[in-house]
Amino acid sequence: MTQNPVSQLAVTEQSDYQSPAPPSAEIICVGTELLLGDILNGNAQFLAKELAGLGIAHYYQTVVGDNPARIQQAVTIAQGRSQLLLFTGGLGPTPDDLTIETLADLFDTPLVEHPDLMADIEAKFTARGRSMPPSNRKQALLPAGALVLPNPQGTAPGIIWSPCPHLTLMTFPGVPREMQAMWRATAVPYLHSHGWVTTTIVSRMLRFWGISESALAEQVAPYLSQDNPTVAPYASKGEAKLRISVRADSTAAALAQIEPVESGLRALVGDDCYGADEDSLASVVGSLLLQRQQTVAVAESCTGGGLGQLLTDIAGSSAYFHGGVIAYDNRVKVNLLQVEATAIADQGAVSAIVAEQMALGARALLHTDWALSITGIAGPGGGTPAKPVGLVYIGLATPSGEAISYRHEFSGYRGRDWVRHLSAHSALDALRRNLL
Amino acid sequence: MTQNPVSQLAVTEQSDYQSPAPPSAEIICVGTELLLGDILNGNAQFLAKELAGLGIAHYYQTVVGDNPARIQQAVTIAQGRSQLLLFTGGLGPTPDDLTIETLADLFDTPLVEHPDLMADIEAKFTARGRSMPPSNRKQALLPAGALVLPNPQGTAPGIIWSPCPHLTLMTFPGVPREMQAMWRATAVPYLHSHGWVTTTIVSRMLRFWGISESALAEQVAPYLSQDNPTVAPYASKGEAKLRISVRADSTAAALAQIEPVESGLRALVGDDCYGADEDSLASVVGSLLLQRQQTVAVAESCTGGGLGQLLTDIAGSSAYFHGGVIAYDNRVKVNLLQVEATAIADQGAVSAIVAEQMALGARALLHTDWALSITGIAGPGGGTPAKPVGLVYIGLATPSGEAISYRHEFSGYRGRDWVRHLSAHSALDALRRNLL
Repeated sequence: MTQNPVSQLAVTEQSDYQSPAPPSAEIICVGTELLLGDILNGNAQFLAKELAGLGIAHYYQTVVGDNPARIQQAVTIAQGRSQLLLFTGGLGPTPDDLTIETLADLFDTPLVEHPDLMADIEAKFTARGRSMPPSNRKQALLPAGALVLPNPQGTAPGIIWSPCPHLTLMTFPGVPREMQAMWRATAVPYLHSHGWVTTTIVSRMLRFWGISESALAEQVAPYLSQDNPTVAPYASKGEAKLRISVRADSTAAALAQIEPVESGLRALVGDDCYGADEDSLASVVGSLLLQRQQTVAVAESCTGGGLGQLLTDIAGSSAYFHGGVIAYDNRVKVNLLQVEATAIADQGAVSAIVAEQMALGARALLHTDWALSITGIAGPGGGTPAKPVGLVYIGLATPSGEAISYRHEFSGYRGRDWVRHLSAHSALDALRRNLL
Repeated sequence: MTQNPVSQLAVTEQSDYQSPAPPSAEIICVGTELLLGDILNGNAQFLAKELAGLGIAHYYQTVVGDNPARIQQAVTIAQGRSQLLLFTGGLGPTPDDLTIETLADLFDTPLVEHPDLMADIEAKFTARGRSMPPSNRKQALLPAGALVLPNPQGTAPGIIWSPCPHLTLMTFPGVPREMQAMWRATAVPYLHSHGWVTTTIVSRMLRFWGISESALAEQVAPYLSQDNPTVAPYASKGEAKLRISVRADSTAAALAQIEPVESGLRALVGDDCYGADEDSLASVVGSLLLQRQQTVAVAESCTGGGLGQLLTDIAGSSAYFHGGVIAYDNRVKVNLLQVEATAIADQGAVSAIVAEQMALGARALLHTDWALSITGIAGPGGGTPAKPVGLVYIGLATPSGEAISYRHEFSGYRGRDWVRHLSAHSALDALRRNLL
């Protein structure tokens, strides 16, 4: 497991029994569908990341089904070790949804109807041209003394409730979009104004393509042992990342501490670093093309459109992406892209020459400055000893009309999706490096 | 929240205090990266689904960081309510990885070195042309009395261990691929042979496109209240689903009970049901094309290649998918697909006539039986009152050379990815219905 910077800051340091532990939060996700594996627990990940960003300690997450006795047991355990309990799920109108009434029962508090909430729920149904089913009535019943945590996007409101000293409960619906909106609009300001946020943790994620996590870690080794900012390597889906994290009194102070570390890392690693945070290879390539006022087209075989899809993930990509040809069948390569039939016959469709001719063909056909091509063996079938599954050629036609090709051997045993994913991203990276 | 069939079977029924509760399992995921929200807890989902399939009750999941005291607290709580504890994470070679030594310490059991494991770990390094770092040595240290749970894909072995009566612990690495392989190869057979699997739950998921979850639920309402098999509606990413679940003594008996329910549902709903279980719209369209020995091409504007990518997700799709044109720029629509410039000028690029001409153009250019086209406004910009974000036209050119178009207004406020996702899938569905 990767050594984790915020782990050291937010968790390990606080296990130092010399100092009294600061109050901590705990996430309790209610829903039998989680116990059945029907859904991924993205809500826990979202709240965990948010808590880390606010610098609020968080040591446990619990998942429990739609069962009052077990929900109460989970709350009783959590109450003994945490001071802020965040609940997701169980706020809907069905008999299965019993988070609120179970909490009220546990803390021996009556439910009271909120007429304004009732009116709001009815209005939301009316706006959709429907009448409110009687079952939704219960969503306006909240424990006496609880604050309403408004839900601008749905009918189920949450609560912010301190049923006893040193304990605050917040409830959210299981629908991620509603939960996130409520968190941002009401819960975060509440935490700020109630003394939960005393320090700031700021992270910056540098992103790399074309270097493995372990090679990257070796290159930047001196940085990995430093403290505040800490630097830690990660890897996901073929990309390597370095997270710089710092704890400071303000965001400005944090950013000032991150800046020299980032500069140092970028200088050390060079062009393998393609961006940071929300950047993607497609967005970076897009920015570079916009700067140069140049355009690009694609010619795709084994990716079948995946490279075009990546490029057009970016809003506004029509300014530099004209389109392309999906040349899955060899006749399309020959007829549309003017690949020589003899090249395919002699070298095979998966070859440097065919990749180059595909790129040149796309550039000519779509009248762009650049064109990228991909031809490879995505598998699971079609591999030979000489050309195994995972062999991919990427072609690039340049503004001067030259063609370059790149040969990759991706791990075919990791499957068709993996080979196609790496192929499309490696093509973007080839263009990026030529644009620099 | 959707009422859940297996919930009734596996969970709710067992809260009936008339009968003694059967033994239950609990999942404990160890990893500070989960508390930081760095990763989604896919391991919990995988194990939850597997437990449901085996009919093993499962009421709680806990996430805890890489901290011995807190891991021990979580185990102590779980031990009081569950008899099978499944651990993921913390088996690696770094100082952060301490699941095994923490468990050994909690149950006051010495660690013993397994020379065969040590040899195996060294051999795995040698096979990669590397020498084993000293830190990996600890992966061969297991609690005395624990069985080895072999890891064929990595260096970290797991354990199956009963440190006291009525308690079995199983540990898995956090790497999903390794964890899943170990689960299937060793853990599941162990559970079968040790009396954990006494009944079989079999589920079948029917898949629907072109009908909302609520409309589907109304159509099949009588089925939703029946017991064993139960039927429950779900929705995800624009598709509606019905899960039929049954508990029986054998898989054959379960399937025999599912069959008439499935037939009844399919008869009731008709063509909106496109398949079941692992089927996708792309795989179903592929099978229909193969049956008819027909071919298809695409012409994509706002999806930028996403439709071609869906079609080529299917291994073997080269038998019926020739390729297509990504016509993101209007000049590509005109120059390559022979869309009339006057049609674009009069009706706009997002119009029925342009969708139809794109489909006809792709069919002619790629010499296929069918062709699908997509033109729309994916957003976030580019919408007008008359043509809002989310407006999409799908065109279909048929083997007889006719063109049909379909108009959709998807929820633009749900974002660019959503509009593109629904567009590509709706295009596949249009072809599917015309192939039936």
